Amino acid sequence: MPSALVLIADGTEEMEFTIVYDTLVRAEVKTTSAFVPDTPSPSHSISPPAAKGSRGIKIMPDIYFDNAECGPDRYDLLVIPGGAKGAETMSNNVGVQHLVRKYIEENKFLGMICAGSLAAQTSKLPKQALTSHPSVKAQLEKDFDYSEDPVTISGKLVSSRGPGTAFPFALTLVELLCGPEKRAEVRAPMVFPANTPF
Amino acid sequence: MPSALVLIADGTEEMEFTIVYDTLVRAEVKTTSAFVPDTPSPSHSISPPAAKGSRGIKIMPDIYFDNAECGPDRYDLLVIPGGAKGAETMSNNVGVQHLVRKYIEENKFLGMICAGSLAAQTSKLPKQALTSHPSVKAQLEKDFDYSEDPVTISGKLVSSRGPGTAFPFALTLVELLCGPEKRAEVRAPMVFPANTPF
Repeated sequence: MPSALVLIADGTEEMEFTIVYDTLVRAEVKTTSAFVPDTPSPSHSISPPAAKGSRGIKIMPDIYFDNAECGPDRYDLLVIPGGAKGAETMSNNVGVQHLVRKYIEENKFLGMICAGSLAAQTSKLPKQALTSHPSVKAQLEKDFDYSEDPVTISGKLVSSRGPGTAFPFALTLVELLCGPEKRAEVRAPMVFPANTPF
Repeated sequence: MPSALVLIADGTEEMEFTIVYDTLVRAEVKTTSAFVPDTPSPSHSISPPAAKGSRGIKIMPDIYFDNAECGPDRYDLLVIPGGAKGAETMSNNVGVQHLVRKYIEENKFLGMICAGSLAAQTSKLPKQALTSHPSVKAQLEKDFDYSEDPVTISGKLVSSRGPGTAFPFALTLVELLCGPEKRAEVRAPMVFPANTPF
């Protein structure tokens, strides 16, 4: 059974977080959410607080983000959602930057959506195809081959644009982890309108 | 500023809840979530517990559901999301049934998505156009003019099908409460793929 870690912080875009997490669970991917605090936390021995999303929905993370327990030895996929403030917290976190490089080094999947793509830059990933929310395009286009595709795949790095591309992003991650049959199996009961292009 | 109440319970489909709530907040609709317990709760003076969604995401509701404080005198829209267990709890709750009828009587909007449409039946709304998740179609089609449109509007009753129709459902609610310009303003930065049919 593949496994995935989805990061969450105060200011995370709650639709992007929820669509990815829920869709992975529907595909039977063992999915865990990890809270990234915006200031160093005194102790991780207690349960993490509720993360307050970008539009005010409060979500309880499963665990605290921790370098030793969130690495590519534990999970097959690391996902960094958007939401300006949440993505800033994650992309500026040295531990997250370290793990972003480590997932790529260990040939595991890395997903970034919306402003979450800024983590590719702060982690100094090499120049390659990348997309993001249009609001951070200007920051990224000098360091990456900027794409405007809804979902952009570069090796193990999968990037996407915003809440409106979160379903094709999540379904692509399911396909990469579990195969095209599982993608189709998960997609059908979601009841997308006819002619939906993903 | 229009206002909306979105119900949540253990077993609520977290994508449907989150997409509706977040999209309404983006439209500057004053949005509140209310927890419907599956057994009567001893006291509502304390904060409600986290609702455990259908795929395990734990969301903190804003308030407890309460007939006196959740009526059409307080809100312009009442939304009942799906998720089999959550929708069962809501649709079997006598207080919810009472308010469903009251919103219609007071000419306020009522949104139901996925298995949430079962509340139209348990509240004994008159026969009219209604859609739902295909899994509960057989239960509903004798009492309603069953529709397979992604979003079905019958007077003030707006119904929809599943996570895959949650965005057009939420954007339709925004349009009805705030007008077509606000719908377009909220939709643009979500960055839907080209040719998305909503």
